[in-house]
Amino acid sequence: MTEIRATNITWHDGHVSRGDREKLLGQKGATVWFTGLSGCGKSTIAFTVEHALVERGHLAYVLDGDNIRHGLNKNLGFSAADREENIRRIGEVTKLFADTGVVSLTSFISPYRKDRDQARRIHADAGLPFVEVYVDVPIEECEKRDPKGLYKKAREALAAGKGMGFTGVDDPYEEPLNPELRIENAKCTVQEAAARVINYLEAKGILPALE
Amino acid sequence: MTEIRATNITWHDGHVSRGDREKLLGQKGATVWFTGLSGCGKSTIAFTVEHALVERGHLAYVLDGDNIRHGLNKNLGFSAADREENIRRIGEVTKLFADTGVVSLTSFISPYRKDRDQARRIHADAGLPFVEVYVDVPIEECEKRDPKGLYKKAREALAAGKGMGFTGVDDPYEEPLNPELRIENAKCTVQEAAARVINYLEAKGILPALE
Repeated sequence: MTEIRATNITWHDGHVSRGDREKLLGQKGATVWFTGLSGCGKSTIAFTVEHALVERGHLAYVLDGDNIRHGLNKNLGFSAADREENIRRIGEVTKLFADTGVVSLTSFISPYRKDRDQARRIHADAGLPFVEVYVDVPIEECEKRDPKGLYKKAREALAAGKGMGFTGVDDPYEEPLNPELRIENAKCTVQEAAARVINYLEAKGILPALE
Repeated sequence: MTEIRATNITWHDGHVSRGDREKLLGQKGATVWFTGLSGCGKSTIAFTVEHALVERGHLAYVLDGDNIRHGLNKNLGFSAADREENIRRIGEVTKLFADTGVVSLTSFISPYRKDRDQARRIHADAGLPFVEVYVDVPIEECEKRDPKGLYKKAREALAAGKGMGFTGVDDPYEEPLNPELRIENAKCTVQEAAARVINYLEAKGILPALE
Protein backbone atom coordinates (compact mmCIF):
# COMPACT_ATOMS: atom_id res chain seq x y z
CA MET A 1 0.00 0.00 0.00
CA THR A 2 1.42 3.35 -1.03
CA GLU A 3 1.04 6.07 1.56
CA ILE A 4 1.23 9.71 0.63
CA ARG A 5 0.89 12.35 3.31
CA ALA A 6 -0.67 15.67 2.41
CA THR A 7 -1.21 18.09 5.28
CA ASN A 8 -2.87 16.06 8.07
CA ILE A 9 -4.44 13.33 5.92
CA THR A 10 -3.06 9.85 5.25
CA TRP A 11 -3.68 8.74 1.69
CA HIS A 12 -3.97 5.16 0.53
CA ASP A 13 -4.29 3.56 -2.83
CA GLY A 14 -6.98 0.98 -3.39
CA HIS A 15 -10.57 0.72 -2.30
CA VAL A 16 -11.97 0.36 1.17
CA SER A 17 -13.31 -3.14 1.72
CA ARG A 18 -16.57 -4.09 3.37
CA GLY A 19 -14.43 -5.59 6.13
CA ASP A 20 -12.80 -2.20 6.79
CA ARG A 21 -16.20 -0.62 7.38
CA GLU A 22 -17.42 -3.53 9.48
CA LYS A 23 -14.32 -3.32 11.66
CA LEU A 24 -14.96 0.40 12.11
CA LEU A 25 -18.56 -0.25 13.14
CA GLY A 26 -17.94 -3.35 15.25
CA GLN A 27 -20.72 -5.22 13.48
CA LYS A 28 -21.47 -6.97 10.22
CA GLY A 29 -23.72 -5.43 7.61
CA ALA A 30 -26.95 -7.38 7.28
CA THR A 31 -30.54 -7.17 6.14
CA VAL A 32 -33.34 -8.16 8.48
CA TRP A 33 -36.38 -8.60 6.29
CA PHE A 34 -39.69 -8.58 8.17
CA THR A 35 -42.64 -10.00 6.27
CA GLY A 36 -46.23 -10.55 7.29
CA LEU A 37 -49.78 -9.31 6.93
CA SER A 38 -50.82 -5.70 7.43
CA GLY A 39 -51.27 -5.12 11.15
CA CYS A 40 -49.12 -8.06 12.29
CA GLY A 41 -46.68 -5.76 14.06
CA LYS A 42 -43.68 -5.78 11.68
CA SER A 43 -42.90 -2.09 12.08
CA THR A 44 -43.27 -2.08 15.85
CA ILE A 45 -40.78 -4.93 16.17
CA ALA A 46 -38.41 -3.35 13.60
CA PHE A 47 -38.34 0.01 15.41
CA THR A 48 -37.89 -1.72 18.78
CA VAL A 49 -34.89 -3.65 17.42
CA GLU A 50 -33.49 -0.48 15.85
CA HIS A 51 -33.74 1.40 19.13
CA ALA A 52 -32.11 -1.38 21.15
CA LEU A 53 -29.26 -1.68 18.65
CA VAL A 54 -28.51 2.03 18.50
CA GLU A 55 -28.64 2.10 22.30
CA ARG A 56 -25.92 -0.57 22.26
CA GLY A 57 -23.83 1.47 19.86
CA HIS A 58 -24.78 -0.31 16.66
CA LEU A 59 -25.87 1.31 13.42
CA ALA A 60 -29.34 0.17 12.40
CA TYR A 61 -31.94 1.74 10.14
CA VAL A 62 -35.56 0.93 9.39
CA LEU A 63 -36.85 1.05 5.83
CA ASP A 64 -40.63 1.16 5.68
CA GLY A 65 -43.47 2.62 3.70
CA ASP A 66 -42.89 6.07 5.18
CA ASN A 67 -39.38 6.53 3.84
CA ILE A 68 -39.68 4.35 0.72
CA ARG A 69 -43.15 4.87 -0.72
CA HIS A 70 -42.81 8.65 -0.42
CA GLY A 71 -39.31 8.70 -1.85
CA LEU A 72 -37.51 6.08 -3.91
CA ASN A 73 -40.72 4.27 -4.86
CA LYS A 74 -43.13 7.17 -5.10
CA ASN A 75 -43.47 6.51 -8.84
CA LEU A 76 -44.84 3.02 -8.20
CA GLY A 77 -48.47 2.05 -7.69
CA PHE A 78 -50.02 -1.23 -6.62
CA SER A 79 -50.27 -3.16 -9.89
CA ALA A 80 -48.63 -6.60 -9.89
CA ALA A 81 -45.65 -5.24 -11.86
CA ASP A 82 -45.27 -2.23 -9.56
CA ARG A 83 -45.44 -4.37 -6.42
CA GLU A 84 -42.70 -6.58 -7.79
CA GLU A 85 -40.56 -3.56 -8.69
CA ASN A 86 -41.24 -2.07 -5.23
CA ILE A 87 -39.75 -5.11 -3.50
CA ARG A 88 -36.95 -5.44 -6.08
CA ARG A 89 -35.75 -1.89 -5.38
CA ILE A 90 -35.96 -2.40 -1.63
CA GLY A 91 -33.90 -5.56 -2.00
CA GLU A 92 -31.25 -3.67 -3.94
CA VAL A 93 -31.16 -0.78 -1.45
CA THR A 94 -30.82 -3.11 1.53
CA LYS A 95 -27.95 -4.82 -0.27
CA LEU A 96 -26.19 -1.44 -0.52
CA PHE A 97 -26.86 -0.76 3.17
CA ALA A 98 -25.48 -4.17 4.15
CA ASP A 99 -22.40 -3.57 2.01
CA THR A 100 -21.93 -0.31 3.93
CA GLY A 101 -21.94 -2.26 7.21
CA VAL A 102 -25.40 -1.13 8.34
CA VAL A 103 -28.02 -3.49 9.81
CA SER A 104 -31.12 -2.46 7.91
CA LEU A 105 -34.56 -3.60 9.01
CA THR A 106 -37.28 -3.66 6.36
CA SER A 107 -40.94 -3.54 7.21
CA PHE A 108 -43.07 -4.37 4.17
CA ILE A 109 -45.85 -6.93 3.73
CA SER A 110 -43.82 -8.35 0.80
CA PRO A 111 -46.45 -11.02 0.17
CA TYR A 112 -44.86 -12.89 -2.74
CA ARG A 113 -42.32 -15.61 -2.15
CA LYS A 114 -40.47 -15.07 -5.41
CA ASP A 115 -39.89 -11.38 -4.67
CA ARG A 116 -38.51 -12.13 -1.19
CA ASP A 117 -36.40 -14.94 -2.61
CA GLN A 118 -34.97 -12.56 -5.20
CA ALA A 119 -33.90 -10.17 -2.40
CA ARG A 120 -32.38 -13.13 -0.58
CA ARG A 121 -30.53 -14.25 -3.72
CA ILE A 122 -28.83 -10.91 -4.44
CA HIS A 123 -27.60 -10.84 -0.84
CA ALA A 124 -26.32 -14.42 -1.05
CA ASP A 125 -24.54 -13.64 -4.33
CA ALA A 126 -22.71 -10.80 -2.57
CA GLY A 127 -21.96 -12.83 0.56
CA LEU A 128 -24.25 -10.64 2.68
CA PRO A 129 -26.46 -11.93 5.51
CA PHE A 130 -30.19 -11.93 4.85
CA VAL A 131 -32.47 -12.69 7.78
CA GLU A 132 -36.09 -13.30 6.84
CA VAL A 133 -38.39 -12.79 9.81
CA TYR A 134 -41.91 -14.05 9.32
CA VAL A 135 -44.23 -12.19 11.67
CA ASP A 136 -46.94 -14.81 11.78
CA VAL A 137 -50.27 -13.54 13.07
CA PRO A 138 -53.61 -15.02 11.96
CA ILE A 139 -55.50 -12.75 9.59
CA GLU A 140 -58.50 -12.71 11.95
CA GLU A 141 -56.28 -11.15 14.60
CA CYS A 142 -54.72 -8.63 12.18
CA GLU A 143 -58.14 -7.67 10.92
CA LYS A 144 -59.45 -7.26 14.46
CA ARG A 145 -56.59 -4.87 15.26
CA ASP A 146 -56.77 -3.06 11.87
CA PRO A 147 -54.66 -0.13 13.19
CA LYS A 148 -54.93 1.86 9.95
CA GLY A 149 -58.49 0.85 9.02
CA LEU A 150 -57.19 -0.80 5.86
CA TYR A 151 -58.98 -4.13 6.21
CA LYS A 152 -62.27 -2.31 6.69
CA LYS A 153 -61.63 -0.29 3.55
CA ALA A 154 -60.61 -3.39 1.59
CA ARG A 155 -63.72 -5.33 2.67
CA GLU A 156 -65.94 -2.40 1.73
CA ALA A 157 -64.25 -2.07 -1.66
CA LEU A 158 -64.64 -5.79 -2.27
CA ALA A 159 -68.32 -5.69 -1.29
CA ALA A 160 -68.82 -2.81 -3.71
CA GLY A 161 -67.24 -4.88 -6.48
CA LYS A 162 -64.09 -2.70 -6.55
CA GLY A 163 -61.39 -4.99 -5.20
CA MET A 164 -58.18 -3.26 -4.02
CA GLY A 165 -55.99 -6.35 -4.28
CA PHE A 166 -55.39 -6.07 -0.55
CA THR A 167 -53.19 -8.80 0.92
CA GLY A 168 -55.20 -11.36 2.85
CA VAL A 169 -58.54 -10.00 1.57
CA ASP A 170 -58.41 -10.26 -2.21
CA ASP A 171 -54.73 -10.90 -2.83
CA PRO A 172 -52.66 -13.81 -1.50
CA TYR A 173 -50.01 -13.79 1.20
CA GLU A 174 -47.46 -16.49 0.47
CA GLU A 175 -46.00 -17.67 3.77
CA PRO A 176 -42.22 -18.08 3.94
CA LEU A 177 -41.30 -21.75 3.66
CA ASN A 178 -38.02 -21.53 5.51
CA PRO A 179 -37.58 -18.17 7.24
CA GLU A 180 -34.64 -17.61 9.58
CA LEU A 181 -37.16 -16.65 12.27
CA ARG A 182 -40.87 -17.13 12.66
CA ILE A 183 -42.44 -14.98 15.34
CA GLU A 184 -45.98 -15.68 16.50
CA ASN A 185 -46.51 -12.10 17.43
CA ALA A 186 -49.99 -12.53 18.89
CA LYS A 187 -48.47 -14.78 21.57
CA CYS A 188 -45.58 -12.62 22.77
CA THR A 189 -44.68 -9.06 23.72
CA VAL A 190 -42.89 -6.76 21.29
CA GLN A 191 -39.83 -6.95 23.53
CA GLU A 192 -39.83 -10.73 23.38
CA ALA A 193 -40.15 -10.57 19.60
CA ALA A 194 -37.33 -8.03 19.31
CA ALA A 195 -35.13 -10.04 21.67
CA ARG A 196 -35.46 -13.08 19.41
CA VAL A 197 -34.20 -11.03 16.48
CA ILE A 198 -31.29 -9.59 18.46
CA ASN A 199 -30.34 -12.98 19.85
CA TYR A 200 -30.31 -14.35 16.32
CA LEU A 201 -28.02 -11.53 15.12
CA GLU A 202 -25.66 -12.26 18.01
CA ALA A 203 -25.74 -16.00 17.38
CA LYS A 204 -24.76 -15.42 13.74
CA GLY A 205 -21.93 -13.07 14.67
CA ILE A 206 -23.60 -10.08 12.98
CA LEU A 207 -23.53 -8.34 16.36
CA PRO A 208 -21.04 -9.13 19.11
CA ALA A 209 -22.73 -10.72 22.12
CA LEU A 210 -23.17 -8.52 25.17
CA GLU A 211 -21.06 -9.48 28.19
CA MET B 1 -39.22 7.57 28.00
CA THR B 2 -40.42 4.22 29.30
CA GLU B 3 -37.70 1.69 29.95
CA ILE B 4 -38.43 -2.00 30.11
CA ARG B 5 -35.61 -4.43 30.81
CA ALA B 6 -35.81 -7.90 29.28
CA THR B 7 -32.80 -10.12 29.88
CA ASN B 8 -29.76 -7.99 29.01
CA ILE B 9 -31.44 -5.51 26.67
CA THR B 10 -32.68 -2.03 27.48
CA TRP B 11 -35.96 -1.22 25.74
CA HIS B 12 -37.17 2.23 24.83
CA ASP B 13 -40.34 3.54 23.37
CA GLY B 14 -40.17 5.92 20.45
CA HIS B 15 -38.05 6.05 17.37
CA VAL B 16 -34.35 6.60 17.08
CA SER B 17 -33.60 10.05 15.71
CA ARG B 18 -31.07 10.94 13.06
CA GLY B 19 -29.19 12.77 15.80
CA ASP B 20 -28.89 9.54 17.82
CA ARG B 21 -27.20 7.81 14.89
CA GLU B 22 -24.99 10.81 14.16
CA LYS B 23 -23.85 10.91 17.78
CA LEU B 24 -23.03 7.22 17.58
CA LEU B 25 -20.98 7.74 14.42
CA GLY B 26 -19.34 11.01 15.40
CA GLN B 27 -20.26 12.61 12.10
CA LYS B 28 -23.22 14.06 10.27
CA GLY B 29 -24.92 12.21 7.46
CA ALA B 30 -24.35 13.96 4.13
CA THR B 31 -24.31 13.46 0.40
CA VAL B 32 -21.27 14.48 -1.61
CA TRP B 33 -22.42 14.58 -5.20
CA PHE B 34 -19.62 14.53 -7.77
CA THR B 35 -20.59 15.64 -11.26
CA GLY B 36 -18.54 16.07 -14.40
CA LEU B 37 -17.70 14.62 -17.80
CA SER B 38 -16.72 11.01 -18.34
CA GLY B 39 -13.01 10.68 -17.61
CA CYS B 40 -12.78 13.81 -15.43
CA GLY B 41 -11.70 11.78 -12.39
CA LYS B 42 -14.88 11.77 -10.27
CA SER B 43 -14.55 8.16 -9.14
CA THR B 44 -10.86 8.43 -8.34
CA ILE B 45 -11.49 11.41 -6.08
CA ALA B 46 -14.57 9.79 -4.51
CA PHE B 47 -12.68 6.59 -3.63
CA THR B 48 -9.74 8.59 -2.31
CA VAL B 49 -12.04 10.57 -0.01
CA GLU B 50 -13.80 7.36 1.08
CA HIS B 51 -10.50 5.73 1.97
CA ALA B 52 -9.24 8.74 3.93
CA LEU B 53 -12.52 9.00 5.86
CA VAL B 54 -12.69 5.33 6.80
CA GLU B 55 -9.04 5.56 7.85
CA ARG B 56 -10.08 8.36 10.20
CA GLY B 57 -12.87 6.25 11.62
CA HIS B 58 -15.72 7.74 9.60
CA LEU B 59 -18.37 5.83 7.71
CA ALA B 60 -18.32 6.69 4.01
CA TYR B 61 -19.58 4.83 0.97
CA VAL B 62 -19.22 5.38 -2.77
CA LEU B 63 -22.20 4.91 -5.06
CA ASP B 64 -21.16 4.59 -8.68
CA GLY B 65 -22.07 2.82 -11.88
CA ASP B 66 -20.67 -0.46 -10.62
CA ASN B 67 -22.99 -0.84 -7.67
CA ILE B 68 -25.99 1.09 -9.04
CA ARG B 69 -26.27 0.28 -12.75
CA HIS B 70 -25.87 -3.46 -12.07
CA GLY B 71 -28.31 -3.42 -9.18
CA LEU B 72 -30.96 -0.86 -8.28
CA ASN B 73 -30.97 0.69 -11.74
CA LYS B 74 -30.30 -2.33 -13.90
CA ASN B 75 -33.76 -2.00 -15.41
CA LEU B 76 -32.95 1.47 -16.78
CA GLY B 77 -31.39 2.27 -20.14
CA PHE B 78 -30.07 5.53 -21.54
CA SER B 79 -33.19 7.21 -22.91
CA ALA B 80 -33.90 10.71 -21.62
CA ALA B 81 -36.60 9.37 -19.28
CA ASP B 82 -34.38 6.57 -17.99
CA ARG B 83 -31.47 8.93 -17.35
CA GLU B 84 -33.73 11.18 -15.33
CA GLU B 85 -35.08 8.20 -13.35
CA ASN B 86 -31.51 6.95 -12.83
CA ILE B 87 -30.49 10.18 -11.12
CA ARG B 88 -33.82 10.47 -9.28
CA ARG B 89 -33.35 7.07 -7.66
CA ILE B 90 -29.73 7.83 -6.76
CA GLY B 91 -30.89 11.06 -5.14
CA GLU B 92 -33.46 9.17 -3.07
CA VAL B 93 -30.97 6.49 -2.01
CA THR B 94 -28.37 9.05 -0.96
CA LYS B 95 -31.04 10.78 1.09
CA LEU B 96 -31.65 7.49 2.95
CA PHE B 97 -27.90 7.06 3.47
CA ALA B 98 -27.58 10.60 4.82
CA ASP B 99 -30.54 10.01 7.15
CA THR B 100 -28.69 6.92 8.43
CA GLY B 101 -25.68 9.11 9.26
CA VAL B 102 -23.47 7.90 6.41
CA VAL B 103 -21.41 10.20 4.20
CA SER B 104 -22.18 8.86 0.75
CA LEU B 105 -20.13 9.91 -2.27
CA THR B 106 -21.81 9.62 -5.66
CA SER B 107 -19.87 9.38 -8.87
CA PHE B 108 -22.14 9.85 -11.88
CA ILE B 109 -21.84 12.22 -14.84
CA SER B 110 -25.32 13.51 -13.92
CA PRO B 111 -25.25 16.00 -16.81
CA TYR B 112 -28.61 17.73 -16.33
CA ARG B 113 -28.98 20.61 -13.93
CA LYS B 114 -32.63 19.93 -13.14
CA ASP B 115 -31.90 16.34 -12.09
CA ARG B 116 -29.06 17.42 -9.77
CA ASP B 117 -31.22 20.23 -8.42
CA GLN B 118 -33.98 17.73 -7.66
CA ALA B 119 -31.53 15.63 -5.62
CA ARG B 120 -30.45 18.79 -3.83
CA ARG B 121 -34.04 19.76 -3.13
CA ILE B 122 -35.07 16.49 -1.48
CA HIS B 123 -32.04 16.76 0.79
CA ALA B 124 -32.83 20.36 1.68
CA ASP B 125 -36.45 19.44 2.42
CA ALA B 126 -35.20 16.84 4.91
CA GLY B 127 -32.56 19.14 6.43
CA LEU B 128 -29.72 16.99 5.07
CA PRO B 129 -26.43 18.40 3.73
CA PHE B 130 -25.89 18.12 -0.02
CA VAL B 131 -22.44 18.98 -1.34
CA GLU B 132 -22.26 19.32 -5.11
CA VAL B 133 -18.70 18.92 -6.35
CA TYR B 134 -18.14 19.94 -9.93
CA VAL B 135 -15.08 18.15 -11.28
CA ASP B 136 -14.29 20.60 -14.01
CA VAL B 137 -11.97 19.26 -16.70
CA PRO B 138 -12.06 20.48 -20.31
CA ILE B 139 -13.60 17.94 -22.65
CA GLU B 140 -10.44 17.91 -24.79
CA GLU B 141 -8.52 16.67 -21.77
CA CYS B 142 -11.16 14.07 -20.83
CA GLU B 143 -11.24 12.84 -24.41
CA LYS B 144 -7.45 12.61 -24.53
CA ARG B 145 -7.46 10.46 -21.38
CA ASP B 146 -10.50 8.40 -22.47
CA PRO B 147 -9.76 5.69 -19.85
CA LYS B 148 -12.65 3.46 -20.96
CA GLY B 149 -12.47 4.21 -24.70
CA LEU B 150 -15.96 5.68 -24.54
CA TYR B 151 -15.25 8.94 -26.37
CA LYS B 152 -13.68 6.99 -29.24
CA LYS B 153 -16.76 4.78 -29.44
CA ALA B 154 -19.10 7.77 -29.28
CA ARG B 155 -17.20 9.62 -32.04
CA GLU B 156 -17.27 6.53 -34.25
CA ALA B 157 -20.99 6.02 -33.64
CA LEU B 158 -21.64 9.66 -34.47
CA ALA B 159 -19.57 9.46 -37.68
CA ALA B 160 -21.56 6.38 -38.67
CA GLY B 161 -24.80 8.30 -38.16
CA LYS B 162 -25.72 6.30 -35.03
CA GLY B 163 -25.39 8.80 -32.21
CA MET B 164 -25.19 7.34 -28.68
CA GLY B 165 -26.28 10.49 -26.89
CA PHE B 166 -22.89 10.53 -25.16
CA THR B 167 -22.35 13.48 -22.82
CA GLY B 168 -20.03 16.06 -24.34
CA VAL B 169 -20.14 14.45 -27.79
CA ASP B 170 -23.77 14.43 -28.84
CA ASP B 171 -25.53 15.20 -25.59
CA PRO B 172 -25.08 18.30 -23.43
CA TYR B 173 -23.33 18.63 -20.09
CA GLU B 174 -24.96 21.40 -18.09
CA GLU B 175 -22.35 22.92 -15.79
CA PRO B 176 -23.36 23.53 -12.17
CA LEU B 177 -24.12 27.21 -11.66
CA ASN B 178 -23.37 27.31 -7.97
CA PRO B 179 -21.67 24.11 -6.76
CA GLU B 180 -20.34 23.89 -3.22
CA LEU B 181 -16.95 23.02 -4.72
CA ARG B 182 -15.45 23.32 -8.17
CA ILE B 183 -12.31 21.31 -8.67
CA GLU B 184 -10.15 21.88 -11.73
CA ASN B 185 -8.90 18.35 -11.69
CA ALA B 186 -6.46 18.70 -14.59
CA LYS B 187 -4.53 21.22 -12.48
CA CYS B 188 -4.16 19.30 -9.21
CA THR B 189 -3.35 15.90 -7.80
CA VAL B 190 -6.08 13.53 -6.68
CA GLN B 191 -4.89 14.05 -3.10
CA GLU B 192 -5.25 17.81 -3.42
CA ALA B 193 -8.73 17.34 -4.86
CA ALA B 194 -9.73 14.94 -2.09
CA ALA B 195 -8.28 17.25 0.57
CA ARG B 196 -10.49 20.08 -0.67
CA VAL B 197 -13.56 17.88 -0.21
CA ILE B 198 -12.51 16.75 3.26
CA ASN B 199 -11.66 20.29 4.34
CA TYR B 200 -15.11 21.39 3.19
CA LEU B 201 -16.79 18.62 5.20
CA GLU B 202 -14.81 19.70 8.27
CA ALA B 203 -15.61 23.37 7.73
CA LYS B 204 -19.33 22.55 7.59
CA GLY B 205 -19.19 20.43 10.74
CA ILE B 206 -20.11 17.25 8.86
CA LEU B 207 -16.82 15.78 10.09
CA PRO B 208 -15.04 16.91 13.23
CA ALA B 209 -11.75 18.63 12.42
CA LEU B 210 -8.59 16.64 13.11
CA GLU B 211 -6.43 17.96 15.96
